[in-house]
Amino acid sequence: MTDVGTLEIEDRPVPAPGPYEVLVEVAAVGVCGSDVHYYRHGRIGDFVVEDPMILGHELSGRIAAVGERVDPTRVGQRVAVEPQHPCRRCKQCTAGRYNLCPYMEFYATPPIDGAFCRYVTIDAEFAHPVPDSMSDDAAALLEPLSVAITTMRKAGVEPGSSILIAGAGPIGVLCAQTARAFGASRIVVTDLLSSRREKALKFGATEVLDPTAVDVSAIEPVDAFVDATGVPAAVVSGIKAVGPAGHVVLVGMGADEYALPVSHIANLEITVTGVFRYTDTWPAAIHLVSSGAIDLDSMVTGRYDLEHVADALDSDTDPASLKSIVNPR
Amino acid sequence: MTDVGTLEIEDRPVPAPGPYEVLVEVAAVGVCGSDVHYYRHGRIGDFVVEDPMILGHELSGRIAAVGERVDPTRVGQRVAVEPQHPCRRCKQCTAGRYNLCPYMEFYATPPIDGAFCRYVTIDAEFAHPVPDSMSDDAAALLEPLSVAITTMRKAGVEPGSSILIAGAGPIGVLCAQTARAFGASRIVVTDLLSSRREKALKFGATEVLDPTAVDVSAIEPVDAFVDATGVPAAVVSGIKAVGPAGHVVLVGMGADEYALPVSHIANLEITVTGVFRYTDTWPAAIHLVSSGAIDLDSMVTGRYDLEHVADALDSDTDPASLKSIVNPR
Amino acid sequence: MTDVGTLEIEDRPVPAPGPYEVLVEVAAVGVCGSDVHYYRHGRIGDFVVEDPMILGHELSGRIAAVGERVDPTRVGQRVAVEPQHPCRRCKQCTAGRYNLCPYMEFYATPPIDGAFCRYVTIDAEFAHPVPDSMSDDAAALLEPLSVAITTMRKAGVEPGSSILIAGAGPIGVLCAQTARAFGASRIVVTDLLSSRREKALKFGATEVLDPTAVDVSAIEPVDAFVDATGVPAAVVSGIKAVGPAGHVVLVGMGADEYALPVSHIANLEITVTGVFRYTDTWPAAIHLVSSGAIDLDSMVTGRYDLEHVADALDSDTDPASLKSIVNPR
Amino acid sequence: MTDVGTLEIEDRPVPAPGPYEVLVEVAAVGVCGSDVHYYRHGRIGDFVVEDPMILGHELSGRIAAVGERVDPTRVGQRVAVEPQHPCRRCKQCTAGRYNLCPYMEFYATPPIDGAFCRYVTIDAEFAHPVPDSMSDDAAALLEPLSVAITTMRKAGVEPGSSILIAGAGPIGVLCAQTARAFGASRIVVTDLLSSRREKALKFGATEVLDPTAVDVSAIEPVDAFVDATGVPAAVVSGIKAVGPAGHVVLVGMGADEYALPVSHIANLEITVTGVFRYTDTWPAAIHLVSSGAIDLDSMVTGRYDLEHVADALDSDTDPASLKSIVNPR
Repeated sequence: MTDVGTLEIEDRPVPAPGPYEVLVEVAAVGVCGSDVHYYRHGRIGDFVVEDPMILGHELSGRIAAVGERVDPTRVGQRVAVEPQHPCRRCKQCTAGRYNLCPYMEFYATPPIDGAFCRYVTIDAEFAHPVPDSMSDDAAALLEPLSVAITTMRKAGVEPGSSILIAGAGPIGVLCAQTARAFGASRIVVTDLLSSRREKALKFGATEVLDPTAVDVSAIEPVDAFVDATGVPAAVVSGIKAVGPAGHVVLVGMGADEYALPVSHIANLEITVTGVFRYTDTWPAAIHLVSSGAIDLDSMVTGRYDLEHVADALDSDTDPASLKSIVNPR
Repeated sequence: MTDVGTLEIEDRPVPAPGPYEVLVEVAAVGVCGSDVHYYRHGRIGDFVVEDPMILGHELSGRIAAVGERVDPTRVGQRVAVEPQHPCRRCKQCTAGRYNLCPYMEFYATPPIDGAFCRYVTIDAEFAHPVPDSMSDDAAALLEPLSVAITTMRKAGVEPGSSILIAGAGPIGVLCAQTARAFGASRIVVTDLLSSRREKALKFGATEVLDPTAVDVSAIEPVDAFVDATGVPAAVVSGIKAVGPAGHVVLVGMGADEYALPVSHIANLEITVTGVFRYTDTWPAAIHLVSSGAIDLDSMVTGRYDLEHVADALDSDTDPASLKSIVNPR
Repeated sequence: MTDVGTLEIEDRPVPAPGPYEVLVEVAAVGVCGSDVHYYRHGRIGDFVVEDPMILGHELSGRIAAVGERVDPTRVGQRVAVEPQHPCRRCKQCTAGRYNLCPYMEFYATPPIDGAFCRYVTIDAEFAHPVPDSMSDDAAALLEPLSVAITTMRKAGVEPGSSILIAGAGPIGVLCAQTARAFGASRIVVTDLLSSRREKALKFGATEVLDPTAVDVSAIEPVDAFVDATGVPAAVVSGIKAVGPAGHVVLVGMGADEYALPVSHIANLEITVTGVFRYTDTWPAAIHLVSSGAIDLDSMVTGRYDLEHVADALDSDTDPASLKSIVNPR
Repeated sequence: MTDVGTLEIEDRPVPAPGPYEVLVEVAAVGVCGSDVHYYRHGRIGDFVVEDPMILGHELSGRIAAVGERVDPTRVGQRVAVEPQHPCRRCKQCTAGRYNLCPYMEFYATPPIDGAFCRYVTIDAEFAHPVPDSMSDDAAALLEPLSVAITTMRKAGVEPGSSILIAGAGPIGVLCAQTARAFGASRIVVTDLLSSRREKALKFGATEVLDPTAVDVSAIEPVDAFVDATGVPAAVVSGIKAVGPAGHVVLVGMGADEYALPVSHIANLEITVTGVFRYTDTWPAAIHLVSSGAIDLDSMVTGRYDLEHVADALDSDTDPASLKSIVNPR
């Protein structure tokens, strides 16, 4: 990405892995809403694309080379990449919250390059081996699945929980699948589009609602609400649907500031928080996909090569599209 | 209270304790902001005073009689009253969250009578014995102290924590004292009034700020923020002062709905919740006061008899007033 | 049970439900190891059977009558019984740990009668409605499943966890099934008998070991170890198989005191605890069985009527027996 | 230490700090029981002193030089040293449990050198600045205080808790002080020696017991028990003194394996764990000492120079000795 709405393919040297890093030949990269947002608007909040930057951060591939401190037998291994590089020394890192590291270098977050390319480097521990039975596409989509897993952890979902999910886009659908895998017994998904509600039912929802037809705040109270829309009205009605001591997790990105039902939150001692990336999710994600509890392959609705990344980024305008994949090689 | 702004003294029969209850002869009752709010407005949210109701729910006294299933040697014991009567059977009660019991009968919450009177009944376990060294006033104020203790628990305050408290009224000052007792090392209190800021410094604050003079959102980030104002602007700037993985606890009552800095909450994975009464706080409160870690007596700025409850309720208009006590006997 | 090893059938009046209770006509009762232990030895630890007592505490049935404070439309409802009667007032109860209530009255724990009979009473909230699709047998076995669910909660099992379970009796097998339902990726079960190891593989184990042939302490470290044997050697080797910050849950009953590998526990900061009954497990259990994640019906290996309770109690001497059910009606 | 019971003073080159490290000129080093144990026995469990090793790991000093990636203005700063060097990359490190890092290099744990010397290096973040008001001795003793803080965290001590501590040596006394600082209301300390019991009373105990005169297991149940003796009989009686859902933390080092009261643990769902070093404790420790909540200086009973380290190591044979300090410069 060289400018807002502009992509170019460049020849660059293959990067050399640092002593603790591996070089990964990229096999598949998922298109995320944040990629699309940078492409169209050039910024997300305080993060501004000022220089050319490679987009893409949901990826899988094969280890092509290793740094000097890394086990050389890993060359050739198929891996899913956890696309972050924390400092490992600050208070957040040593507390186990490396996702909140203020010195984080994250793929495709300015000015750090991402994965719509042939080769990337990553810390060896963040190149997670995947089984042969897992496709490259599924291995790439372990990244958004990691967001969903973090969401379920923060939402306190366990066997028998009830959950409301606003939005049946890729993250909403992944949350529905993950809620089911975590044992939720009641999984209500709302979306404006009936085609998306249908998808949600296919991927784990036990019930779907059209928020223009039903007062979501008046459903039988749920233990947890996840917003995957960023739309204030959806957030407000969703929070009001949460019962005593319930959990709210905001995943969808929207305005910096908007009105929340504070009295409801306080009187019912509801906990509201958000998800910012993830820590220690790939092993769980790999198991959930390998065991068949979660189906990532069926979520892929389009595949593109490097020459057609712009088409991949624009595919979200098609309501039938759920998840697009770029295959660089 | 017979109508908005109207109080009358009535002769009523002394209540008989139920089998698991005790009869308490009331010694001291603190005046709470919610009493004042009912008195002036006749309602708090959905709770409306429709019939005559006795106000007051911060109280101490002496056990005058016991129900048939209660140890009779308790007669004569000085006690602080935890003024709630949960159902003990619902999902919230059996989960240990009896404060959230939907069938709760709480003192001075319509239509349940409170404590500006000579005698009340309460479950035996909720009449907490206090040591002789503790005054009746202090024993009554264990109730608002319980709110502060719950707040510190939810704020995750432990030795070395930093905390920002908006508002230096009775709850703000109690939170400052309790934060210090929980080991907080940095306790920043904001208030519009310099006289209140002075009080905060006396009662535990390590630093006070005038929010009209300083950008509160720009202070060195804190681990926790407690709002004891209910004022949206204070809540927003306070939340923005919280660092990664920090905690926000909303104690002050304000509008049902107002704007919060959602991006800041989500990007830093801050947790926002509220406090609705308390569970299992009196033993800790009694220890903190007995050990001298918290000083309740010095917070009392006025004492009234039953004939002057109206004056007690109006005392909050005096900026020098911090906490008023009614002594019914 | 009128004496050690002696059972008699008596005619007794049908009990009347208290105001908050229901009368349940018993449909199915599982035989538990503790029933067998009382029958053979007359005691478990400090609990001694001194007077005639009805055994049995794993039960389902149908509501035959309700107390005056209970919804009368519940008559006829099929229910699983949570067989405990806590005081609801002590410190443990109000903290949400009613299983640890020192005033607990628990079915078939002396001197409280159990369920090998036609009618029992229980608090209305502890008579959990079950769907029509669930058999009476499965509904009865929600009780031991509740033990397994509590075990998984205490063991911290979540998607991707690894767990070692010692013992493939009913509780061990239920723990294996429940570990799988909670998302564990590696479930190692040990048992001396190959027939039981086969059962474990059928019910969720990913791997089984003969502890006489393999050094269990030397397997790849697990996140959690559950002992369902009560055998000291199994406990020691199991604990040594646990990795840093792992969890140990002791479910099997054995000697009051025996040697544990304290250095390993301390140096790896492993947490060791036990399970004593359960709180708030039936809703989760009902969902896990209804959704097919856990199969209780296939665990039943024998059915008996009231006249043959002695045979049911003795069925554990048959190595092919896994779980026996008594159908009183 | 060149052999068991043998110390020699050697001239060695001053170490050069790595890029993220600082060079500390050592001011004070506390003598720990583990130093004494290595000195007398040459090993602790699997850790064996095979080559000459410098003992000592409780230390403070002044930054003499910094690595290239460290803020150069830190030179001259007085610091307390957190004497560990975790890998920062393994599963334990990224989970925030760097104390359990299997690749840990810890001061004075073979084969890593410690602090009875003039200069040491340490990661910059583990050189914690201390205020001018804090003595070098106190700054060195933040290390054992960190053990006590970790113990209180694991014991769940909060305002109003009750705790039993076995052993009134340095760690037991620090635990008593820290329990008081965490708000414990009842702090029972046991020790065989009346002189040590006196010390415990001076440093926070509310009650002391002679375990040869009193049945410790029969005291009013406590919320938490901390063993700082490693003596099996003390551990057993202490665990039996813990009430329902209580916590046991084993800090004292003793035999690898010994008998614990397993039935009591299981029936009361008590949690047993140990403490292995610490994470993120220095900031809390610095605050607790600076605020006067904990007094470290008064615990120092002897000071030695580098020539008399052997005397410092032997000082524990004097019952009047509580804590010895070596001042290398």
